[in-house]
Amino acid sequence: MAHFEKQLTTKTIYDGKILELHSDTVELENGNQALREVIIHHGGVGILPVDAQNNLLLVRQFRYPTGAELLEIPAGKMEKGEDPRQCGLRELEEEVGCHAAVFESMGCMWPTPAYDTELDHLFYAEELTPCNQHLDEDEFLDVVRLPLKKAIEMVLNNEIPDAKTQLAILKYAALKQK
Amino acid sequence: MAHFEKQLTTKTIYDGKILELHSDTVELENGNQALREVIIHHGGVGILPVDAQNNLLLVRQFRYPTGAELLEIPAGKMEKGEDPRQCGLRELEEEVGCHAAVFESMGCMWPTPAYDTELDHLFYAEELTPCNQHLDEDEFLDVVRLPLKKAIEMVLNNEIPDAKTQLAILKYAALKQK
Repeated sequence: MAHFEKQLTTKTIYDGKILELHSDTVELENGNQALREVIIHHGGVGILPVDAQNNLLLVRQFRYPTGAELLEIPAGKMEKGEDPRQCGLRELEEEVGCHAAVFESMGCMWPTPAYDTELDHLFYAEELTPCNQHLDEDEFLDVVRLPLKKAIEMVLNNEIPDAKTQLAILKYAALKQK
Repeated sequence: MAHFEKQLTTKTIYDGKILELHSDTVELENGNQALREVIIHHGGVGILPVDAQNNLLLVRQFRYPTGAELLEIPAGKMEKGEDPRQCGLRELEEEVGCHAAVFESMGCMWPTPAYDTELDHLFYAEELTPCNQHLDEDEFLDVVRLPLKKAIEMVLNNEIPDAKTQLAILKYAALKQK
């Protein structure tokens, strides 16, 4: 049986820099009403860059909500309506300083579908050539080169806690095994 | 070099049912100030239940922010300070209707570390015995039994878009291969 919730009302609680917060009421399939708090986010792109020696190019940066530095694939937020591939190629250039001759989709992921419209597109990038990295004035990160095999071990040992990074590494490894 | 952002001010914009929204200012390492919009969420638990025939027990439910039904591992939100294992065992019982003699950690994931404090704990569950499923009055989902091998193919073909579900399936497959 198909499940469904019908929007009855929607209210914008906050309209900010990177997200909006809505408070909606919905009608459930039993006729009851329920509150839905929803973050509106335009989605993102994450890119797994792999060099000719099977090293990954990752970035290490401070993530304020976690209170810690995380090791992540390069990634960025899409502007409303932006093409995911263009966004990914731009982020790869800006954060890691490389172009890619091969840039292939690894599908999408909803990171928090219970309360957030963010949908992320994952790519892998190969046949890399260096170009100028150009971070924003207020962006601070280090590029870290990590062998794929070591990265897989780190994911399985829970040493890489970022979700999109874990998924991109395991998905790439599985796709290349096929 | 270690990167860091120092909190200067914090303001609660919204204090809701499942999340809070804060608007903070931080000092960056170059001395500039920046705005950080942060969702405060107590985190969740996701469980991959695997039966003796290597079938996964997944749930299909409507996710309002995505506008669609998603196929997911059973999962739930933790209460503040709740033990992840207890939360996981409870969700397994409530959503899927089973107990597990084996309940092992597969680590954690930050789904959206750029702007959200949600941290999710992943487990796999084996040696399952049926018990009564007991959904909340306003909770609607179907339990779907899916062979592990088919589930891996679906992840690689981008037919399972939920992040925690993709990650749990690939992580379980990789751990069992080791």
